[in-house]
Amino acid sequence: MRAVTFQGLEQVRVEEKPEPELVAGDDAIVQVDTSAVCGSDLHIYHGRVPVEEGFTIGHEFVGTVLAVGDDVDRVGIGDRVVGCFHTACATCTPCLRGDYHRCANGQTFGHGSHLGNLQGAQAERLLVPRANLTLRRVPESVSSDVALFAGDVMGTAFHAISYGGMRSGDTVAILGLGPVGLCAVQAAFAGGAVQVFAIDTVAERLEMAASFGATPLHLTEQDAKKEVRAATGGAGVDVAVDAVGNPEPLALAISLARDVGTVSGIGAYSGRMEVPLGLAWLKGLSLRLGVANVIAHVDHVLDLLEAGKLDPAPLVSHHMSLDQAPEAYQLYDAREALKIILTP
Amino acid sequence: MRAVTFQGLEQVRVEEKPEPELVAGDDAIVQVDTSAVCGSDLHIYHGRVPVEEGFTIGHEFVGTVLAVGDDVDRVGIGDRVVGCFHTACATCTPCLRGDYHRCANGQTFGHGSHLGNLQGAQAERLLVPRANLTLRRVPESVSSDVALFAGDVMGTAFHAISYGGMRSGDTVAILGLGPVGLCAVQAAFAGGAVQVFAIDTVAERLEMAASFGATPLHLTEQDAKKEVRAATGGAGVDVAVDAVGNPEPLALAISLARDVGTVSGIGAYSGRMEVPLGLAWLKGLSLRLGVANVIAHVDHVLDLLEAGKLDPAPLVSHHMSLDQAPEAYQLYDAREALKIILTP
Amino acid sequence: MRAVTFQGLEQVRVEEKPEPELVAGDDAIVQVDTSAVCGSDLHIYHGRVPVEEGFTIGHEFVGTVLAVGDDVDRVGIGDRVVGCFHTACATCTPCLRGDYHRCANGQTFGHGSHLGNLQGAQAERLLVPRANLTLRRVPESVSSDVALFAGDVMGTAFHAISYGGMRSGDTVAILGLGPVGLCAVQAAFAGGAVQVFAIDTVAERLEMAASFGATPLHLTEQDAKKEVRAATGGAGVDVAVDAVGNPEPLALAISLARDVGTVSGIGAYSGRMEVPLGLAWLKGLSLRLGVANVIAHVDHVLDLLEAGKLDPAPLVSHHMSLDQAPEAYQLYDAREALKIILTP
Amino acid sequence: MRAVTFQGLEQVRVEEKPEPELVAGDDAIVQVDTSAVCGSDLHIYHGRVPVEEGFTIGHEFVGTVLAVGDDVDRVGIGDRVVGCFHTACATCTPCLRGDYHRCANGQTFGHGSHLGNLQGAQAERLLVPRANLTLRRVPESVSSDVALFAGDVMGTAFHAISYGGMRSGDTVAILGLGPVGLCAVQAAFAGGAVQVFAIDTVAERLEMAASFGATPLHLTEQDAKKEVRAATGGAGVDVAVDAVGNPEPLALAISLARDVGTVSGIGAYSGRMEVPLGLAWLKGLSLRLGVANVIAHVDHVLDLLEAGKLDPAPLVSHHMSLDQAPEAYQLYDAREALKIILTP
Repeated sequence: MRAVTFQGLEQVRVEEKPEPELVAGDDAIVQVDTSAVCGSDLHIYHGRVPVEEGFTIGHEFVGTVLAVGDDVDRVGIGDRVVGCFHTACATCTPCLRGDYHRCANGQTFGHGSHLGNLQGAQAERLLVPRANLTLRRVPESVSSDVALFAGDVMGTAFHAISYGGMRSGDTVAILGLGPVGLCAVQAAFAGGAVQVFAIDTVAERLEMAASFGATPLHLTEQDAKKEVRAATGGAGVDVAVDAVGNPEPLALAISLARDVGTVSGIGAYSGRMEVPLGLAWLKGLSLRLGVANVIAHVDHVLDLLEAGKLDPAPLVSHHMSLDQAPEAYQLYDAREALKIILTP
Repeated sequence: MRAVTFQGLEQVRVEEKPEPELVAGDDAIVQVDTSAVCGSDLHIYHGRVPVEEGFTIGHEFVGTVLAVGDDVDRVGIGDRVVGCFHTACATCTPCLRGDYHRCANGQTFGHGSHLGNLQGAQAERLLVPRANLTLRRVPESVSSDVALFAGDVMGTAFHAISYGGMRSGDTVAILGLGPVGLCAVQAAFAGGAVQVFAIDTVAERLEMAASFGATPLHLTEQDAKKEVRAATGGAGVDVAVDAVGNPEPLALAISLARDVGTVSGIGAYSGRMEVPLGLAWLKGLSLRLGVANVIAHVDHVLDLLEAGKLDPAPLVSHHMSLDQAPEAYQLYDAREALKIILTP
Repeated sequence: MRAVTFQGLEQVRVEEKPEPELVAGDDAIVQVDTSAVCGSDLHIYHGRVPVEEGFTIGHEFVGTVLAVGDDVDRVGIGDRVVGCFHTACATCTPCLRGDYHRCANGQTFGHGSHLGNLQGAQAERLLVPRANLTLRRVPESVSSDVALFAGDVMGTAFHAISYGGMRSGDTVAILGLGPVGLCAVQAAFAGGAVQVFAIDTVAERLEMAASFGATPLHLTEQDAKKEVRAATGGAGVDVAVDAVGNPEPLALAISLARDVGTVSGIGAYSGRMEVPLGLAWLKGLSLRLGVANVIAHVDHVLDLLEAGKLDPAPLVSHHMSLDQAPEAYQLYDAREALKIILTP
Repeated sequence: MRAVTFQGLEQVRVEEKPEPELVAGDDAIVQVDTSAVCGSDLHIYHGRVPVEEGFTIGHEFVGTVLAVGDDVDRVGIGDRVVGCFHTACATCTPCLRGDYHRCANGQTFGHGSHLGNLQGAQAERLLVPRANLTLRRVPESVSSDVALFAGDVMGTAFHAISYGGMRSGDTVAILGLGPVGLCAVQAAFAGGAVQVFAIDTVAERLEMAASFGATPLHLTEQDAKKEVRAATGGAGVDVAVDAVGNPEPLALAISLARDVGTVSGIGAYSGRMEVPLGLAWLKGLSLRLGVANVIAHVDHVLDLLEAGKLDPAPLVSHHMSLDQAPEAYQLYDAREALKIILTP
């Protein structure tokens, strides 16, 4: 079968790879109808996340179940399903607590041997371990393009809002309007936000956030702190989401949050960072950091997609074929695409 | 000034009463522009809640601040304000925990001496103690009819959903579509409910719930349990709200809730009740009961009203003058009105 | 091998039964060193819970792992382990939420075909499915008698306190001083209770509760409500645990709880019950009902046992051999034993 | 009356100051029987917190009520009372949420005009505004030395544990064994910690922590990370408390916390700090920062002191007279005292 493989720095190739086969009782084989290129794929593309040459990449997918092991009971052959971007064992200590994102035995699709040695989803077919936990039937009314977001980007956005403790009636700021940030705007409104400040420097992304109902704030052309204060009676927002992952947006998030509010850091932080923790301490803030617990949220996210309360369709900027993967990566890397869907 | 007074069983009268006067430093005097007749007023009307003859009744109001004591700093003279239906001292043990609805020193407007001896809001003018805690400025874009709901009915509905632990993406059932139940439909959707089952026997109320997005279920002509199960994959709803307060709806709420779900009992329970607690135990349910903590919610509710996420305007079925109060009570008692607004 | 089997109303017998065999990859076989008779066993004994004749009963056990399937990685051959009283699949919707006690595919040991058709633990050897989720290594310093409680009685007591939302510094009332109630006294103190009122009619049980630090209150010879009020400044307790499961103790729990407090109903409720929900509503109580989520708690409970913060050893009133099971059941049924440990 | 006043860098003096007088209805005058020198006082002493020359300092006190305004109902003349280190208005938005430590109108005793212009407690007598919120009767069995901790140091320690989300059965690490850190060891055990790692470099403080039941770890002579991992099966602690407030202990706290655990930062952070947020993000940590909400905790802390579950008596290293305040400050500044109690 054809599959997109990593070939070294900024090189991907469509290659012929062996067909996946069922091994464990809770395995499934999925015919991938829809996959996508994600920001995390660029970390691989640029060599920041080490992946073996020839490894199939990709971790977002919707497809049709072709085969299942004996223990699989949540999905069946022929079902259209969406997959989460990683698996979990369901029985280790973190899983027992419901922290599937920190599973001691988890595997991430398409991230090489150091993250579980699980071949990726930018391929014609895919082996999915722990299918009962990882796969979900897609409701009929939800398109594959939209459903695909439930397994990664929208699940991550939902996590940012939910782990951030947002309550109905709260105000929210979203820093960084990439796919996760834009989805977080929607997740905030879906959960009852009365006002969402959406902050970025790219006009198109600000416009899209505004089209979702957000109050757009240009990071450099406007004074976000002043605007947020003016709109919140001087208090600041209940929840500030950093969807970037650098010290500057985190510092801004800290300054935008109200006293005893929350900063939800969903952007990928790395190493040591210098941030104004003195201010965070003075305000009594909670900083809730980390990768998303997508498996815990996927059912709620699918329900919200089906209900139309979340709709990431406008984020899909490009449809390309699997064979066009090299161009897709170039395009995405050049920041000329918001979300590229790949179909076989 | 003119005021509506209780005069004995099913008798109210508009009488001349003395003008209210500031006493404590945190008192305010409000010129009542908008008041309303509430379900609780009927308890007085029918003698179920004992109120002295000649006592001014009513506890829902929007008005204009005429005078304030030295310690009042959250509202000022000339402000259009909405009031909560009761006061709280803010310093007793329940208040210190944030349980303002169980304040040891609280007073309820218009409920006679046994609930704090505080004259009611169906009057031209009103003394409001603890004004910093009880009064809120009404945002300019919110009509007085709509704002009035924040101080009682919508605050109660918001409490039913919030205390019920509803999360974004949940399913909800509302039993009883009086004003509180109808507002709870809105509060559930505002907070991210994906489906709200609205259950009653009155066609008009079911229609109104449907117009808010709910799935109407006729209590006697449909099998609510079967319908809810079918729509939720057999699981039941995450949160079932009993907005009636009798054993039958509570029993149905218990049967509609999913395992380890919540039943939020906001309807006024009385005395001993026989309910299927065996089933509730088997399911591991939480039954969260009680009157609403309106003071804790009023800011969020006003923000949601201003954002248009909540809009009780369709519930206002009648506008009448204060002088028509006797007719208003008869109309409301005959269940011919959903919400009657009184203006001077 | 020898095993205790149900033989009809108030009849148990030690019989020869076939040896258990590994079937699934996450199965284990345990050599049972220590089992026990539990209050739930009496429901079977009296025919209230239907179990087939000849079915092996018992669900509390500590033993040594004899064999494991390929997927078992949390315990190994030779480990001394304690088991939870039921299994869970870890992947159904309730399990995904962490509600292992409401698993759609769970099996309870020794409760016949209607609760999963899983042979019981009052036997020489036992098949344990889902061993990764169900079995835990016993810390060296914890005796088997004590460890056994982690899988059922102490786990249930811990759940009553934890699900009841008890916080450090709270006051608690425990109604009913059977094994679960007595363990709940310990669990409350372990979690920071400042005062625990222990209510029963049996002098020995009141004395044992007092030896754990509780304030004993004789149900009929003292006025529990008056005593609790006097000791709590009129407020009532933060958490009231009903460890009986009848309307009377639940009614008393409701009257003992403080405003906006919690009643934790861990006793087995059945059918319809008439209770003062009017009072519960007036107080704004949460009633948190249900069987315990022992799997979710077992690690914390074992840690507390190892730390000596919980110590159910005084509850063990009898040690008998497996062959004496018929006498053990008679003794327990006659309420002459608090906890009977069976050894091969 | 005599009072300890700030006189410029590292200078305090006992001076004659005017007697306090009742102004507002909720004021009280307290005869200070017991006050203390606190770490915060050193910030003033060293000029890091600006206080006017001649301002009376001190914010920890136990005393006897001499006079009360008309609105004071929680304490009365002659009561022995403990005070919280700051006041709160109870009606601003943060107070309404229960965040008394971020009150918009709060005043801190003895911190000069920039923190509310409220004269301090190292004096013979003290004006206490908002007495209903700030003062509590001391239970008879609790000594004044011990009760004094409820209003600041122990309340802060309790907050660190409680805001850190510690649950019964958890493991905890405390970094920094000053008075707050040592009290946090006790607060952790009181709330059900099974193991508390106490980390510092001072042998006496490690010994005291060990005497409270903690596992002492010498910061430089032992490898805290390695020891904690070994003792927790590689997982790390559920809650890591930084009671120092510098980047190094915060970094260590991040490395000691388990996945999806909590770091509770109670030490005073200042300005920008460089910390390993990449690791915190990878682990999915919550960093809960800030000054303590002592008013919210004071009743629970007093109950725990009365129950003997908390006992800071061993921390009192010196008793001195008010007139010896200059020596007391020198001693404390030289780190030769753990807690100095001042009596008139």
